[in-house]
Amino acid sequence: MSEQKQNRLNTFRAHRSEMNDKIMDLDHLGIKRFFNLDSNAYNDGVLPVQTKELLGLVASTVLRCNDCIDYHLEQCAKTGSSKEEIIDALNIALTVGGSIVIPHLRHAVETLELLENEGVLD
Amino acid sequence: MSEQKQNRLNTFRAHRSEMNDKIMDLDHLGIKRFFNLDSNAYNDGVLPVQTKELLGLVASTVLRCNDCIDYHLEQCAKTGSSKEEIIDALNIALTVGGSIVIPHLRHAVETLELLENEGVLD
Amino acid sequence: MSEQKQNRLNTFRAHRSEMNDKIMDLDHLGIKRFFNLDSNAYNDGVLPVQTKELLGLVASTVLRCNDCIDYHLEQCAKTGSSKEEIIDALNIALTVGGSIVIPHLRHAVETLELLENEGVLD
Amino acid sequence: MSEQKQNRLNTFRAHRSEMNDKIMDLDHLGIKRFFNLDSNAYNDGVLPVQTKELLGLVASTVLRCNDCIDYHLEQCAKTGSSKEEIIDALNIALTVGGSIVIPHLRHAVETLELLENEGVLD
Amino acid sequence: MSEQKQNRLNTFRAHRSEMNDKIMDLDHLGIKRFFNLDSNAYNDGVLPVQTKELLGLVASTVLRCNDCIDYHLEQCAKTGSSKEEIIDALNIALTVGGSIVIPHLRHAVETLELLENEGVLD
Amino acid sequence: MSEQKQNRLNTFRAHRSEMNDKIMDLDHLGIKRFFNLDSNAYNDGVLPVQTKELLGLVASTVLRCNDCIDYHLEQCAKTGSSKEEIIDALNIALTVGGSIVIPHLRHAVETLELLENEGVLD
Repeated sequence: MSEQKQNRLNTFRAHRSEMNDKIMDLDHLGIKRFFNLDSNAYNDGVLPVQTKELLGLVASTVLRCNDCIDYHLEQCAKTGSSKEEIIDALNIALTVGGSIVIPHLRHAVETLELLENEGVLD
Repeated sequence: MSEQKQNRLNTFRAHRSEMNDKIMDLDHLGIKRFFNLDSNAYNDGVLPVQTKELLGLVASTVLRCNDCIDYHLEQCAKTGSSKEEIIDALNIALTVGGSIVIPHLRHAVETLELLENEGVLD
Repeated sequence: MSEQKQNRLNTFRAHRSEMNDKIMDLDHLGIKRFFNLDSNAYNDGVLPVQTKELLGLVASTVLRCNDCIDYHLEQCAKTGSSKEEIIDALNIALTVGGSIVIPHLRHAVETLELLENEGVLD
Repeated sequence: MSEQKQNRLNTFRAHRSEMNDKIMDLDHLGIKRFFNLDSNAYNDGVLPVQTKELLGLVASTVLRCNDCIDYHLEQCAKTGSSKEEIIDALNIALTVGGSIVIPHLRHAVETLELLENEGVLD
Repeated sequence: MSEQKQNRLNTFRAHRSEMNDKIMDLDHLGIKRFFNLDSNAYNDGVLPVQTKELLGLVASTVLRCNDCIDYHLEQCAKTGSSKEEIIDALNIALTVGGSIVIPHLRHAVETLELLENEGVLD
Repeated sequence: MSEQKQNRLNTFRAHRSEMNDKIMDLDHLGIKRFFNLDSNAYNDGVLPVQTKELLGLVASTVLRCNDCIDYHLEQCAKTGSSKEEIIDALNIALTVGGSIVIPHLRHAVETLELLENEGVLD
């Protein structure tokens, strides 16, 4: 895999982090509360965090957002889902969302490979 | 709860079943294969069927399809998810999909009540 | 088929016509031009009107709008598409749009039956 | 206008209110916070509430949610927008969202008539 | 901010302008009329152009189109909306559209910074 | 036209092919069956392949997926549609989907130019 691809995840992470900081600096109460609420939604609750991250991944995939897919793929890996479980969840997203999801499946499978190379995904 | 509301689920089930039969009778190979593939996606696999139904529910909710929500709510109940777990999954859908999801959350909570009345949901 | 179902198409047609008249009565230049442009898009042009109506049907189906589906199904029938051709077009919509399209496929197949009963579809 | 149509808004309001209460009774912290955040977003802030309700209306229309359209139409009327201003906002939604929005425009224009009959809209 | 980012807006503007010219050169009457209708929708009318551009921005954001967001952000700035007003409008879009909108909010906030650097936004 | 643009199609084709191979290597039965079903949907059937590719193009355009648009544009050209027919189909997509489709129309017109330069489109 080319170095350029390997850097894609790091570029995304840095941009996400930098822009989230700038969004917080806007100091808009509604936006800050939304970000807080969004983080909390994936904390352990009645459902375990591992399941919640799979739910976030499938929601992101059927809504076809690559940045959201990359974020949740990493969280899925970090919260204990195996590659096989992630692929099985992506199959649900493909079935529900149809062939229009396929370009995002290609993106997701590439990201999984990057996460494997980094050792984030076993 | 009014009798009319209680009958809503039965009307949906009967219409769904009748029309699915008519779709099969069209005898279009592609459509038949899609329906087969769709059923199989929710069978036990690497992920257990209970998790898969929660994934189907969240995908249906962010894509805002009441019929799909009703179908997966019943499957979630039948495959062992509790009301509290289903609500926690719907919270993920609400957070990802935003306030435009709220009318479908109202629909889902009404359906949960109907399923409780029927004894499908504990 | 129940009388109630048979009346569904007529209710839709009457409501569509009544409300379109009221929209024209609003006398908003932009809206009137949009309606005019929308009608013209399906006139014979480089592509024949029969093909254009199939395109409108598939677009309406993947975007999951039952009113739009009913309108284009009737136009498809009137511009010479057979039931088999319409079903083959709906299969493309199902494949592109996924299982979330299925409730709309059920609706479409019911409408096709109503159009057959009326003699609009051969 | 038939009595049935006139009752449509009241049925919607009663159902919305009843189900929102039941959602609060679920006592899910994330969902309760989301509802609170959603209400606050439309309060006077840097932008006046009248503009915010027009923004909510256009967002609801391009995302094609009739319940959301009905809610924001009433709020637009109550916060001082005239029928002509609301129609001009709906024209933006139609232009951005295309002909797939038209069935929702028909719904919106019918709701405006109901609000006029009630005296909510001047 | 890096020069690369600063150039992003100019690259978008040049590409948009070049391709719009090529689309006009196709000389398709329907497409030309649509472009004309689209421009006219944002002219002063019952609603002032400043409000219309905020409506266009929110519609573009909930439909998650970065090019449309960039275009309307520039128009919002040029028609007199302040950064604080634009952020308040984006909060409505975030609330309606949910966390799937966040990557587009990050994009929008970056674009606002570019417009400030150019002096387009005060 | 710059060399960079001309290479865009080849980069897409290579990435699509490489990632589709990797998806097949995942050996997930559901995903493999979906890909098979997706290919078969566009084979000659009741509707000719040329019409089916136009249907796939319009579905991809209203759902706003550039990769899908590029794929179907090439297939439309290869199955005998002229540039004028493709533009007329894209006009249907623009009318149904609205101005939010315009950035994808710009992309499509650029791709058509690339296909002309390659001699794929007459």
